[in-house]
Amino acid sequence: MALRVALKTPKGTKDWCHADIRLRDHIFATIAAVFAAHGAVPLDTPVFERSEILAGKYGQDAKLIYNLQDQGGELCSLRYDLTVPFARWLAMNNILQIKRYHIAKVYRRDQPAIAKGRLREFYQCDFDIAGSFDPMIPDAEIIKILCKVLADLDIGSFTVKLNHRKLLDGIFQICGVPDSLIRPISSALPWDAVRNEMILEKGLDPLVADKIASYVKLKGGHDLLEILERDPAITSNPSASAALKDLGLLFNYLAALSILDKISFDLSLARGLDYYTGIIYEAVTQASQDDSIGSVAAGGRYDDLVGMFANKPNTIVPCVGISIGVERVFSILKSRTPIIDQNSVQVYVMAFGGGKDWTGFIAERLSICNILWDAGIKAELLYKNKPKPRPQFEAAERGKIPLAVILGQSEYPNGQVRVKKLGLKLDSDQGDLVNIGDLVQYLLKTLTELKL
Amino acid sequence: MALRVALKTPKGTKDWCHADIRLRDHIFATIAAVFAAHGAVPLDTPVFERSEILAGKYGQDAKLIYNLQDQGGELCSLRYDLTVPFARWLAMNNILQIKRYHIAKVYRRDQPAIAKGRLREFYQCDFDIAGSFDPMIPDAEIIKILCKVLADLDIGSFTVKLNHRKLLDGIFQICGVPDSLIRPISSALPWDAVRNEMILEKGLDPLVADKIASYVKLKGGHDLLEILERDPAITSNPSASAALKDLGLLFNYLAALSILDKISFDLSLARGLDYYTGIIYEAVTQASQDDSIGSVAAGGRYDDLVGMFANKPNTIVPCVGISIGVERVFSILKSRTPIIDQNSVQVYVMAFGGGKDWTGFIAERLSICNILWDAGIKAELLYKNKPKPRPQFEAAERGKIPLAVILGQSEYPNGQVRVKKLGLKLDSDQGDLVNIGDLVQYLLKTLTELKL
Repeated sequence: MALRVALKTPKGTKDWCHADIRLRDHIFATIAAVFAAHGAVPLDTPVFERSEILAGKYGQDAKLIYNLQDQGGELCSLRYDLTVPFARWLAMNNILQIKRYHIAKVYRRDQPAIAKGRLREFYQCDFDIAGSFDPMIPDAEIIKILCKVLADLDIGSFTVKLNHRKLLDGIFQICGVPDSLIRPISSALPWDAVRNEMILEKGLDPLVADKIASYVKLKGGHDLLEILERDPAITSNPSASAALKDLGLLFNYLAALSILDKISFDLSLARGLDYYTGIIYEAVTQASQDDSIGSVAAGGRYDDLVGMFANKPNTIVPCVGISIGVERVFSILKSRTPIIDQNSVQVYVMAFGGGKDWTGFIAERLSICNILWDAGIKAELLYKNKPKPRPQFEAAERGKIPLAVILGQSEYPNGQVRVKKLGLKLDSDQGDLVNIGDLVQYLLKTLTELKL
Repeated sequence: MALRVALKTPKGTKDWCHADIRLRDHIFATIAAVFAAHGAVPLDTPVFERSEILAGKYGQDAKLIYNLQDQGGELCSLRYDLTVPFARWLAMNNILQIKRYHIAKVYRRDQPAIAKGRLREFYQCDFDIAGSFDPMIPDAEIIKILCKVLADLDIGSFTVKLNHRKLLDGIFQICGVPDSLIRPISSALPWDAVRNEMILEKGLDPLVADKIASYVKLKGGHDLLEILERDPAITSNPSASAALKDLGLLFNYLAALSILDKISFDLSLARGLDYYTGIIYEAVTQASQDDSIGSVAAGGRYDDLVGMFANKPNTIVPCVGISIGVERVFSILKSRTPIIDQNSVQVYVMAFGGGKDWTGFIAERLSICNILWDAGIKAELLYKNKPKPRPQFEAAERGKIPLAVILGQSEYPNGQVRVKKLGLKLDSDQGDLVNIGDLVQYLLKTLTELKL
């Protein structure tokens, strides 16, 4: 039986323990509260999908999908994001309009860098709005939600980089990129890397690349939009022109939402995923840039994904969404604030006594604990038949437990216990003698006074 | 792109939506509160483990493990339960003593029966106590926790079936079962099924089977323990005798915890998993028996599992735990109480107006929503540039939203909006005119009055 195995979690995965879970759950709760404040309902999908659901959705990143072994039956893969399962769910249930959020783990066979919050199993918090609406109103609300989440998380200064897939497509057309290279060129990588790959491997004309470079270096706010609106090459391209119309509306709405100062209209922003069709955005924080963590959130509009699944022809369920990367947020918040690990237990139930006839009050301690547990009071005891005082105090101290209930050898048979405040360094304090019948009431009162 | 795929979740899995998630989260919160009241800390492990971690832990059930495809690198499998990952975590971190809880999905390639809460992907809520302690004290606390959880879930009347692995082993020895058949015979299946398999396929002597049957039909409480203590065949068997000593202590502690009436000492109870070494238990409810759902929770003592992983020789970290099956609890609670789906949004922001010069106040509505969102008030608006009143009221009604803030064509330019209570069927009520600068305060006061 004593076969030795390598004691580790799979590459790129980690265990979450104690205080880290408290910080993680604080992040989840903060994000979910913002999502719910905007009317979203929660959804949870299986951790794996039928493989054909994921096929053709992720472009070159598809090689990062985890597949389950073929053990008979369906071929399945771990979900790569929460967006494709959402689209599958919408199509499967013929839902044409909804706001939903989903907080769950996703899986990518990428090169991990755990300290930077880049893992193979990691959490995403997604909010999406599905439905046919007047243009750019839900898009603006999503960006507001992103800003509110990052502000509520107190993550420090941040910028939302904004671009439009149709503007990128238009620019590539204007610059003379062949149609077959437009999707591959819309990579999430930095332009220099994409440029080299395109020229060396895909045969892109370097002059075309230089023309693209003159566009993708542009950054700004509403001013950049005005510059592009005066560029006849852009305005005469139908795709780019439609994008400028969207962006004009969006800037108006972002002004109404008082978040223009957070926005950087950045033509170098490209999202790698195939399914985006409209605006795209990424949030970077000062902290994430300093630590090369990359973006803490990203998303965009994907109007055709649900239609790819729908059984009824010509079903269009336009969507726009945001995905927040919990591990990256976690890395930033944890590096800033030390997390205090604390037990939430309120009372340690102890026995004091000695001599060979002393029973150790184990059944009696269980009985007192039982009264406290049934009253909703959080209590622990030492799992020892005849405990000495010191290990009981030490256990209470380790758990930062504020109160002790002590069953004394002479007092307990008279129906009384002592209640003692811990951590006061007053060894002379013997605590208060309390009748067992009054114990719950006494403890609840004391815990209220101590604000515990 | 319009490749048609089968729109379904993988066999034995399901999506969780809206109101179901609310009930599920209520179950999680109820269970976690009990676990925390007993001093447990939360743990979360990756959804898959290195396959060798799972190997040799599940006996005949190992065929139900989901493996990941070999895509290079480590061989991994989806977790089958939360117990083996816990033992791996204890050994990996050299933790000798802890109480931890873990609420997460586990995976079994079993025949699903979704209506009965039997799925391939399902939730378990586990609480375990690890550490070397005086005997049966943590075991008693675990059974108390189980009873408290089921009571707090308000699941109806229930019974905790109790048995001891060493008592079963002893009985099999006494009856003359060959050593090689003792593990296979300790199946979770009903005795009749095991008996037939043992006789027909494994060559067990039918007389031996009859002798076993005379024991495994026994059920009772403390009285049954007394009967067994008078059986010289039992008391002269070291394994069975050790079990009786454990059970004697346990019954004392269960009496101190006032839960003897919930216990059925049942010699037919066997748990299939290889790793149990001491007491074992399962909770069945009246509802779960009526609907053939089976047990809603199960667990036991497993003293050797951590040692199978530990790098240091002779490391022993005895453990005892309980696992609660959320889907089965969910089935029972959902069938009993209709769940009301409700939106938690508090305010619907509307525009009233008309005529060709009317803008529809879309930027203005976003701006009012923005003020409410920033004040923590949950608000929605219709994503339409020039909405008519009816679809706005209908949307608010669908979401059961209690208040409307109305931007009127003539009032808004004067810095005022109307606040109207919805759902009152008083169409004559025009609501109150409120200055925009006072709106947040007014709404917070109204929501407090309405207890929302």
